[in-house]
Amino acid sequence: MAKTKMVYFFGNRTAEGDGTMKELLGGKGAGLAEMTKIGLPVPAGFTITTEVCGEYYKNNRKYPAGLKEEVAANIKKLEKVTGKKLGDPVDPLLVSVRSGASVSMPGMMETILNLGLNDVSVQGIAKKTGNLRFALDAYRRFIMMYGSTAMGIDREKFDELFGKLKDTVTRKRLKIEKTKTVLDTDVNEEELEALIKSYKELYKKEIKKPFPQSPEEQLWGSITAVFGSWMAEKAITYRKVEKLYGVMGTAVNVVQMVYGNKGNTSGTGVCFTRDPNTGENVFYGDYLVNAQGEDVVAGIRTPIKLSDFEKKDPKAYKQLCDVRKILEKHYKDMQDLEFTVEEGTLYMLQCRTGKRSPAAAFKIAVDLVNEKLIGKETAVSRIKTSDIEGIFYPTIDKSQGPAIKSAFLVKGIDAVPGAATGKVCFTAERAELMAERGEAVILVRKETSPEDVGGMHAAHGILTATGGKTSHAAVVARGWGKCCIVGCEALQIDYTKKQFSVGTKIVKEGDFITLDGSLGAVYLGELKLVAPKLPPAYTTLMKWADELRTIKVRTNADTPYDASYARKLGAEGIGLCRTEHMFFDSEDRILAIREMIIADNADARKKALAKLLPIQTKDFQGIFKAMDGLGVTIRLIDPPLHEFVPHDEAGQKALAKTVGIPFDTVKQRIEKLHESNPMLGHRGCRLAITYPEILEMQVTAIMTAACRMAKKGVKVFPEIMIPLVIDATELSLLEKLTRTVADAVIAKNGVKVKYLVGTMVETPRAALLADKIAAVADFFSFGTNDLTQMTLGMSRDDAGKFLLDYVDEHKTGIFRADPFQSLDQEGVGLLVATGIQKGRSTKSELKIGICGEHGGDSESVKFCCRAGMDYVSASPFRVPVARLAAAQAAIEAKAAAGTAAASKKPGAKKPAAAKKTAAKKPAAKKPADSKTAAAKKPASAKKPAATKK
Amino acid sequence: MAKTKMVYFFGNRTAEGDGTMKELLGGKGAGLAEMTKIGLPVPAGFTITTEVCGEYYKNNRKYPAGLKEEVAANIKKLEKVTGKKLGDPVDPLLVSVRSGASVSMPGMMETILNLGLNDVSVQGIAKKTGNLRFALDAYRRFIMMYGSTAMGIDREKFDELFGKLKDTVTRKRLKIEKTKTVLDTDVNEEELEALIKSYKELYKKEIKKPFPQSPEEQLWGSITAVFGSWMAEKAITYRKVEKLYGVMGTAVNVVQMVYGNKGNTSGTGVCFTRDPNTGENVFYGDYLVNAQGEDVVAGIRTPIKLSDFEKKDPKAYKQLCDVRKILEKHYKDMQDLEFTVEEGTLYMLQCRTGKRSPAAAFKIAVDLVNEKLIGKETAVSRIKTSDIEGIFYPTIDKSQGPAIKSAFLVKGIDAVPGAATGKVCFTAERAELMAERGEAVILVRKETSPEDVGGMHAAHGILTATGGKTSHAAVVARGWGKCCIVGCEALQIDYTKKQFSVGTKIVKEGDFITLDGSLGAVYLGELKLVAPKLPPAYTTLMKWADELRTIKVRTNADTPYDASYARKLGAEGIGLCRTEHMFFDSEDRILAIREMIIADNADARKKALAKLLPIQTKDFQGIFKAMDGLGVTIRLIDPPLHEFVPHDEAGQKALAKTVGIPFDTVKQRIEKLHESNPMLGHRGCRLAITYPEILEMQVTAIMTAACRMAKKGVKVFPEIMIPLVIDATELSLLEKLTRTVADAVIAKNGVKVKYLVGTMVETPRAALLADKIAAVADFFSFGTNDLTQMTLGMSRDDAGKFLLDYVDEHKTGIFRADPFQSLDQEGVGLLVATGIQKGRSTKSELKIGICGEHGGDSESVKFCCRAGMDYVSASPFRVPVARLAAAQAAIEAKAAAGTAAASKKPGAKKPAAAKKTAAKKPAAKKPADSKTAAAKKPASAKKPAATKK
Repeated sequence: MAKTKMVYFFGNRTAEGDGTMKELLGGKGAGLAEMTKIGLPVPAGFTITTEVCGEYYKNNRKYPAGLKEEVAANIKKLEKVTGKKLGDPVDPLLVSVRSGASVSMPGMMETILNLGLNDVSVQGIAKKTGNLRFALDAYRRFIMMYGSTAMGIDREKFDELFGKLKDTVTRKRLKIEKTKTVLDTDVNEEELEALIKSYKELYKKEIKKPFPQSPEEQLWGSITAVFGSWMAEKAITYRKVEKLYGVMGTAVNVVQMVYGNKGNTSGTGVCFTRDPNTGENVFYGDYLVNAQGEDVVAGIRTPIKLSDFEKKDPKAYKQLCDVRKILEKHYKDMQDLEFTVEEGTLYMLQCRTGKRSPAAAFKIAVDLVNEKLIGKETAVSRIKTSDIEGIFYPTIDKSQGPAIKSAFLVKGIDAVPGAATGKVCFTAERAELMAERGEAVILVRKETSPEDVGGMHAAHGILTATGGKTSHAAVVARGWGKCCIVGCEALQIDYTKKQFSVGTKIVKEGDFITLDGSLGAVYLGELKLVAPKLPPAYTTLMKWADELRTIKVRTNADTPYDASYARKLGAEGIGLCRTEHMFFDSEDRILAIREMIIADNADARKKALAKLLPIQTKDFQGIFKAMDGLGVTIRLIDPPLHEFVPHDEAGQKALAKTVGIPFDTVKQRIEKLHESNPMLGHRGCRLAITYPEILEMQVTAIMTAACRMAKKGVKVFPEIMIPLVIDATELSLLEKLTRTVADAVIAKNGVKVKYLVGTMVETPRAALLADKIAAVADFFSFGTNDLTQMTLGMSRDDAGKFLLDYVDEHKTGIFRADPFQSLDQEGVGLLVATGIQKGRSTKSELKIGICGEHGGDSESVKFCCRAGMDYVSASPFRVPVARLAAAQAAIEAKAAAGTAAASKKPGAKKPAAAKKTAAKKPAAKKPADSKTAAAKKPASAKKPAATKK
Repeated sequence: MAKTKMVYFFGNRTAEGDGTMKELLGGKGAGLAEMTKIGLPVPAGFTITTEVCGEYYKNNRKYPAGLKEEVAANIKKLEKVTGKKLGDPVDPLLVSVRSGASVSMPGMMETILNLGLNDVSVQGIAKKTGNLRFALDAYRRFIMMYGSTAMGIDREKFDELFGKLKDTVTRKRLKIEKTKTVLDTDVNEEELEALIKSYKELYKKEIKKPFPQSPEEQLWGSITAVFGSWMAEKAITYRKVEKLYGVMGTAVNVVQMVYGNKGNTSGTGVCFTRDPNTGENVFYGDYLVNAQGEDVVAGIRTPIKLSDFEKKDPKAYKQLCDVRKILEKHYKDMQDLEFTVEEGTLYMLQCRTGKRSPAAAFKIAVDLVNEKLIGKETAVSRIKTSDIEGIFYPTIDKSQGPAIKSAFLVKGIDAVPGAATGKVCFTAERAELMAERGEAVILVRKETSPEDVGGMHAAHGILTATGGKTSHAAVVARGWGKCCIVGCEALQIDYTKKQFSVGTKIVKEGDFITLDGSLGAVYLGELKLVAPKLPPAYTTLMKWADELRTIKVRTNADTPYDASYARKLGAEGIGLCRTEHMFFDSEDRILAIREMIIADNADARKKALAKLLPIQTKDFQGIFKAMDGLGVTIRLIDPPLHEFVPHDEAGQKALAKTVGIPFDTVKQRIEKLHESNPMLGHRGCRLAITYPEILEMQVTAIMTAACRMAKKGVKVFPEIMIPLVIDATELSLLEKLTRTVADAVIAKNGVKVKYLVGTMVETPRAALLADKIAAVADFFSFGTNDLTQMTLGMSRDDAGKFLLDYVDEHKTGIFRADPFQSLDQEGVGLLVATGIQKGRSTKSELKIGICGEHGGDSESVKFCCRAGMDYVSASPFRVPVARLAAAQAAIEAKAAAGTAAASKKPGAKKPAAAKKTAAKKPAAKKPADSKTAAAKKPASAKKPAATKK
């Protein structure tokens, strides 16, 4: 660290830093430097880098050598630029000290203002401004801020003293002026002096040292406080919640004070260069006359609109409008500004890219392109996953305000975003019944199983006590874009009593609850929701995205409805059609599959399968029709057979009766199906190895459907996918059987249908031996759900219990994100890359895609692009996310190719600590798709949220 | 195939083939060629290669082009050498036709003798030999053998005709000679002629064609029959049972006939050049005067001993003794010979390496070294895994003969070899109780769990209905060398009724059963067992093995007893000490661990752990003492916590009462521990991430024990192993915690103890990221059980249901062996190799071993040697197997290094089909460790089998 520059000065229209140095100077520091550089009115100051903060913690809370000297030199510089001296009794330099990390981070230290004041200089200020009251008030504020914020004295103790004073004053004044309440501003100079005295006494009592009179001591106390606040619990929590990993630390900004509270030609405000809710190109913000920033936050007075500001102070407003123009042109994006007007002169205090609603994100991006400020690539790059989620899913109407907070019950894992409200019920049957009656239902289960699918579909939202983001409930709900919260471990469900409890609170069947799937929050009662609305800018922007991306986006869909819906959302084929879901669709289907399972010989099995054949054939016909002209990858039956059979005695007895087999036999057969680890059990293509007749039936159904539709002029491209393969010989056996059956069906139908036979690569062994497997496969589809489970040895249904610790940066920091949601690029990704490389080494034209849950995750989609896949496949609702991510990946690839040759950005040296994490966490620089952006702004439409059918 | 030589001639002291060409000529053909070459008296003939058989099947049972011509040319050559002509009416050449694959394979076609006889040539022979009866008898036999063996006529139909004839003759003679029964030899010429007539009529009736008179037609009919018998069901079954994969086909041997049935100076015999039971260097065999080989098999007459043969025909015997000497010197191994003496002249008909008992295998190998016939390396190479198993485990006393067969009940999976007999019981508690009473017990369970360990230990044998070779039952039993059969799916266990049934047979608690773990066979009743006895040659040979091997052999041991025992068996340290087994050892232990699990906060957990600390410390002290001077790798707790808690209400209530927590709380907590896929759940180091206090307790116990023993002068080398690691950060966190705790204990004890902290590599991710993980590990131990499960996505507890299909060459041929028993070198092996390479790339001195079940499997141990591991670790009883395999691996490596430069063996070209399979199945040439060798010869000791304590 010896030679590294630790402090960056700005002022007098020059700055050592600039706007690109957010990581090193923090967002605030970089913004101030950049604004200074481009000639905007910014008070002078300097920024201590985030690296210093990192070093500070690395060295056990010790400052790096040379820092003191560098700060001292910058103070000198600041004194020269301002012409004032810190602690000067006549014309003292006063400064503010603020924290500022590379990303906005509430929970860190608030500002300390008026630093430099002491018993002497307060008089200097008084004389210089000719306003003793102003000087005393500033000093009073400084002692309080320093005492509480920097030194940790309970703020309430200061407030208490002020309160007491005001009471005294009130009592005194009541007699004279009959004023009922005394405002801060009503306190006079004398009283303020008394208050200052009592503040200092409080300080001495608490800290065991007198309030520091040395500005230098004040400054270092404040710097230490800023660094200390980086590790304050609420800051840690915020980073955790927002998944802000790899951020090194906070910078410290020391800036010359300007005053918005110098009378009616002074004031302070915050504004957005465009409307952050709608995205419209209108100036948007608040202004508070005669006030300091602190007062805006305190909410004591109501700010005025910018239009009123214009009327009130057209000259200052004009300055602000100029700044708005300059900044938008400079940053080419909507900005969020903080400013102060001191006696008619505008000073910019902060400038950062403004947060915006999802709808605004699309509108602003498209408008900026139309205004020729940015290109299409930039516009597409700026849209986040959460923006798409935000315009697709209903949300809780934020206008309900504190009612939302008070209705909060418990938090689970945010499996599928959006919101839902309805009556609680505990069984799938009940959910279907209530839904038929027209009631909105929330299905609450310990966990869901394929048997529950009907009820899950009928429900508006799903809440489970166990499971992670890729548990059965989450995966199924995601496919429907249905609000879902899982792994809500605090839930104690009592099926017998038809109720659940959280602590002492009990919720019974029929009670209303509301789910916010984006936050994973469960609320008591029926909260108002706002329905999603697609802005026109969405269509424009997604068209651009589609033009930019280089890989295809398919969908995971099991029904003609889902297929059509996904196609509308931009899907270019089906990447995964799970045939087993079809079996649960009706009583006769599930009965036939159960009969097949209970059969103890191939003939009985074939008899049962014969019943399923026409049903599956019809299903596939609908899917082929919906996907006319596009590829349809159909996976043969995958789950272990025990998932299809009834596990209770009543169900088994009913089955025995219907099938005409003794109950004991049924029971024994079902018992034998039990597996210790079903995920690693008798499933996938292992079923076809044991019972080839199942494969034969399914292939017959697929190809019969394909031939029939082809005869009707539908362009069919069936791709038969064999799951859970571990070996080339295994696949070869099944591939041959598949082709034999398929060719026979084609010959019988006398119609030309081309088809592919490929495999899911979802076991580590398949990826490792991909060169051999590719020899007998037309295509690979990486099943990264299972591949993740096996590579990590981690069951997604069970990981809820411990995975939180793994993604908790402050506890372990092992994973940056849930590996079932965002692909573990380091581990699983290595296997995927190996599989692709080996597969193509055997068959260079091998078609390769992904069909795990990761196909709908932005970072994972980007990985797939980089890895050279031909397509990703996502659940219908994630198709737009995948399209966007694919476009962004293409843009990034282009940029990376370009950057290699380009020169280094000045000062953009990556700090050491960030580098280390960046290797593991490729997107560390960018906060992960922020959920808050989507959650903060409700969409404007008023239609009640409805579940997609 | 056009240019390939298909037929190899031998005769007149020269041969086109030789003894090295077993694969191409079959064992018999190669033996005949070699014996001819070295000047032994062998009748002339030729061999059609196994390649022809392979081609025959490849071409849909058509002979390759040119074969007919090549055979004809060889017949010509044979006629020239013998001076006789096939079908010659005066002096016809007669031949035998026999099958002969590269490995002995019962179930294939028997010999066809006397080929060349027809209605005309039979008279020629009669005249030439002056023995019409002999000629007719030969013709009669030929028609029967050809008709039944080659043409598939039911042999019994021939026997019936012969029987009828003998009855007639008997009735006729009874009147004259009062002889009661008529033997074959009593039938006279006239009667034989009538029999021949009736045989030919039968043939015509069955085949719809007259019996072929053309010797050429006879020859091709016989050749086709030999090839056909290769795919006969019993031959296929034999290959399946013996795991003879990759054998291409059978050869056909056509050899001039010689006759042992030409009077009292003729005869036939089989012999071993040394005693195959004891290995003693004595000539051992049987001789039958005036008989053909067929008669020996038929068992009609009792053969005489070789010593009597010497007395009877010293000249012929002298010839045989000379041959014995020549062959042993030539082959440098004990040989199994077949010979015929025709009128005083010896002819050798077969010569192959003799099968021998396990004890004999050791003795012969050591003796041959002492006799300077072979070197130590060769001696070590010849010992098979089954030889070691055979001398270590008790076996069923084969002298009980057919009683064994009739007691047979059902077959399961042969998990642990050896035999056991005892009373059936169904619970671990009952097993312990009965064992305390001194009763021998067989524990029969659907499956076992850690709770059953006490009962399993008390039982003499274990039988389960589910699970594979690495299921809980198998793994635990193997560690104790205790007979165990698993996955016996036909078992219907009814715990309530305390009985199990197999079909209609019911076995109740208290009934005796006997298990043969080597075969996986279950017998009803109490069969007599013979105890194992270590021959002195074992010690000598294993000493040589130890001198030869280059890697260490450790053991998996959890108790001081096991540790000491394994050390006696040659273990050089502990490679895996599973700490969790200790928890089940007594009531207070399991209670303390349950209390720890039920605890809902760290303090309560710590309290419970404090109870376990002194217990675990004591355990480790014993282990360190037993392993004085050797490394001890101790794995921290690994299984999911729910394995430790009671799952029944009664148990939970008892626990609630003892711990003083409400039953509902206990129940809920246990319910929450339930996992869908426990193998991929909250276990291994994930427990330590969630509950660091468990790790702290265990490390404290390990290091306290180490320090205490060190103070007493014991040389301790603790190696702390962290299981189920997936990430370097994860390991690093736990490694730091481990070192902090360990160093504190060392400091407190004031004694110098060096220790290592390493990890198990048992997830694919750990292997893939081994370069990063190695940076924070002192050693790697590959946990190939779990690694196999995850790489293949296959639960070892559930795989029983479908894995049989995967290892069935004739159904799928996907795996050559159960991948849980013998390492899947192609897939899992690739990960292991990657892990080693990456690990050492970071840390070249990284100590690497294996501690899965594979450490006791010969082929897997060899793989580990090749892969560059420092040691393997096996359960105590498998330590000798591992030592031997390690030595053989070293020998093979040396040979491979040498072979590279050496010249090709003449004619040893590997046929194409074998090559193809050899690539996947590295040991295809050698039949897998044959179970039969061990099973066939009971050890001689008479002590009843006892279970090791």
